[in-house]
Amino acid sequence: MAALPPSLWAMTSSPFSSPNAGLIGVPGSRSRLATPCLVLDLKVFTRNLEVMADYAQQNGRGLRPHFKSNKCLEIARRQMAAGAVGICAATIAEVEVLAAAGIRGILLATPIVGSPRLARLAALHAAGADVTVAVDHPSMVAPLARIGAGGSKPLPVVVDFDLGTHRTGAATVAAAIALAGDVAAHPALRFAGVQAYAGHLQHVVAYKEREALGQAAHRRLREVVEGLRARGLPPGIVTGAGTGTHAIDSAADSPFTELQAGSYLFMDVDYDRVELREGANEQPFAPSLFVRSTVISVNQPDMVTTDAGLKRFATDGPMPHVAAGAPEGATYRFFGDEFGRVLLPEGAARLNLGDAVELVTPHCDPTVNLYDEYHVVEGDTLVALWPVDARGLI
Amino acid sequence: MAALPPSLWAMTSSPFSSPNAGLIGVPGSRSRLATPCLVLDLKVFTRNLEVMADYAQQNGRGLRPHFKSNKCLEIARRQMAAGAVGICAATIAEVEVLAAAGIRGILLATPIVGSPRLARLAALHAAGADVTVAVDHPSMVAPLARIGAGGSKPLPVVVDFDLGTHRTGAATVAAAIALAGDVAAHPALRFAGVQAYAGHLQHVVAYKEREALGQAAHRRLREVVEGLRARGLPPGIVTGAGTGTHAIDSAADSPFTELQAGSYLFMDVDYDRVELREGANEQPFAPSLFVRSTVISVNQPDMVTTDAGLKRFATDGPMPHVAAGAPEGATYRFFGDEFGRVLLPEGAARLNLGDAVELVTPHCDPTVNLYDEYHVVEGDTLVALWPVDARGLI
Repeated sequence: MAALPPSLWAMTSSPFSSPNAGLIGVPGSRSRLATPCLVLDLKVFTRNLEVMADYAQQNGRGLRPHFKSNKCLEIARRQMAAGAVGICAATIAEVEVLAAAGIRGILLATPIVGSPRLARLAALHAAGADVTVAVDHPSMVAPLARIGAGGSKPLPVVVDFDLGTHRTGAATVAAAIALAGDVAAHPALRFAGVQAYAGHLQHVVAYKEREALGQAAHRRLREVVEGLRARGLPPGIVTGAGTGTHAIDSAADSPFTELQAGSYLFMDVDYDRVELREGANEQPFAPSLFVRSTVISVNQPDMVTTDAGLKRFATDGPMPHVAAGAPEGATYRFFGDEFGRVLLPEGAARLNLGDAVELVTPHCDPTVNLYDEYHVVEGDTLVALWPVDARGLI
Repeated sequence: MAALPPSLWAMTSSPFSSPNAGLIGVPGSRSRLATPCLVLDLKVFTRNLEVMADYAQQNGRGLRPHFKSNKCLEIARRQMAAGAVGICAATIAEVEVLAAAGIRGILLATPIVGSPRLARLAALHAAGADVTVAVDHPSMVAPLARIGAGGSKPLPVVVDFDLGTHRTGAATVAAAIALAGDVAAHPALRFAGVQAYAGHLQHVVAYKEREALGQAAHRRLREVVEGLRARGLPPGIVTGAGTGTHAIDSAADSPFTELQAGSYLFMDVDYDRVELREGANEQPFAPSLFVRSTVISVNQPDMVTTDAGLKRFATDGPMPHVAAGAPEGATYRFFGDEFGRVLLPEGAARLNLGDAVELVTPHCDPTVNLYDEYHVVEGDTLVALWPVDARGLI
């Protein structure tokens, strides 16, 4: 290989930090951002955060928001400061990141299975991390009890119950109750309650339809709760609920004691179609998360090519929506790994090379998972870079 | 926030490195890997790398493989050692990573537009990086010439020509030739040749159909090449071609002088359906890249849930294929952000909690883009972790 010029050697000594770091606090810097980048509107985000915190409190529910949506410690800290009872995690790596930052009340909502993960949980529990785990199979109770015995307190465990998603969870009321009995029988474990997440209901668009399905799920869940009480095992918490069902699961007769929602912070094209509260005109949350892109080719009629393609958005849901920078009626389509196309309505003004287009993210969680940091803006100014701390960790 | 126990404070002082780093070189360690992780079969990968290097050489073509597929310097170095004339990049950040590692012959295949990117190119050129850039619009020539003037040599520029993908590139033969004239008129620029990438042809399944379309593209491209020669601007390189068209674009009468393929290293479900050489029984490359996952829930009949969902695979293409760890006939489906389901054929043996399932990636480039490192294996042993150096950089 040819020798490297001294000036390039100098470049290698610094990590490849964000090219936008120098713009923090510079008025008008949003328009100067290197793209494609993930932009978080601080004002809208903060309002979303507060609306859900207030809603949970007013309805007598704990809020244990999900870290999997944002993977960002700065956000978890703000949620805790606004009254969250803890933070949910989807992976053991997320738990490690949260615990090392001093977050308490962590709930690993995914049943923990496999020697590598169990070894990491053992280290966390022995180190005093405040982590509750989920179990959905009797064969996992004994391994968890061994981990519990390695800490100064018993390991808290919730029983995961399947409300019909069929992804995880005990499949029957009897199986859930039996599992709770297994957990409670181990002195190194503390039976902490029940988890039940109706993932299949979150995106049912019509409120009334979602409510009816949610209430049917409540009836099944109440059978578990009542069965546990009858066995002398009243659940300390009944945890679940996402952004889609947060209102239904907060109703007076809902068995849920706490909400695990996460996407409400950002909203996205997926959730923005869902009637989140009764009556379509009362959407409580607004999109705060955008991908900012740049027009890089303009040689075709009625469309331009941008620098944000399917490596910069989740592609499992709808298309991103144009939020700003293109004429009314413009639409976005993926155009390969590295490119997007913005289709311009007939007669609309052309876009020029270098113009910026901002897009509402289609599905927020896997979109965030593609980026190393949030570009936090207030109006037209970049005010901070928040790392996506747990991105990609295994 | 509650105080952090001293043992957790200790954990915060170390970065969250791969939980599998301690397994490198341990015989049989593949079966002990923390999952979900990206596994690269070194033997198959190396064979793919060599087959393409030999093919290009035997057909008198340069090979300038695309970095966007793998984003890994270790891989780029191996390609260069096997005779590549350089490396293609899709983003300025990829160019920075390559240049800082001393790679020569870098081609930024995406037209470079926008002040932040141009400033970074200027820094690279002034520092002596060996970078050629693409242009597809006359308004970009003057800004590139200013950058060229800032280095000790002229900046090499290829003219990007649209073969029908309509993504980037001059739209007509006349526009391409005029653009080359603009470039050649600037002493601070060096007209290096033509780029033309037929993205829309790469996945046409039948060889003969793809060949006919490729030959039609060749005819258009030859018009550009002949027009340039007639104007006294013979192109030094004519660069393009992906894994799908590598054989067609290497034919004796093809105008391409070099190939930009990338996916051949890994193959994927998408490309494995494509008849890459004439005659379906002669697939020259084999899948070398897998996602390894763990079964984490087994409470449903005829299916199990794994820990690898739509945050661990590209979701723009087909479903991942089961490669190992599940009975013949088992299929994989996405099951939300964090989960997959493996559907078991009737009468097949059940899978157990903790069992590993490995899957062929559906579309390799955006799958790699989700991971921080390759777990390189030889047989059943982890032999290295290779960083995905340019992942997520903007």
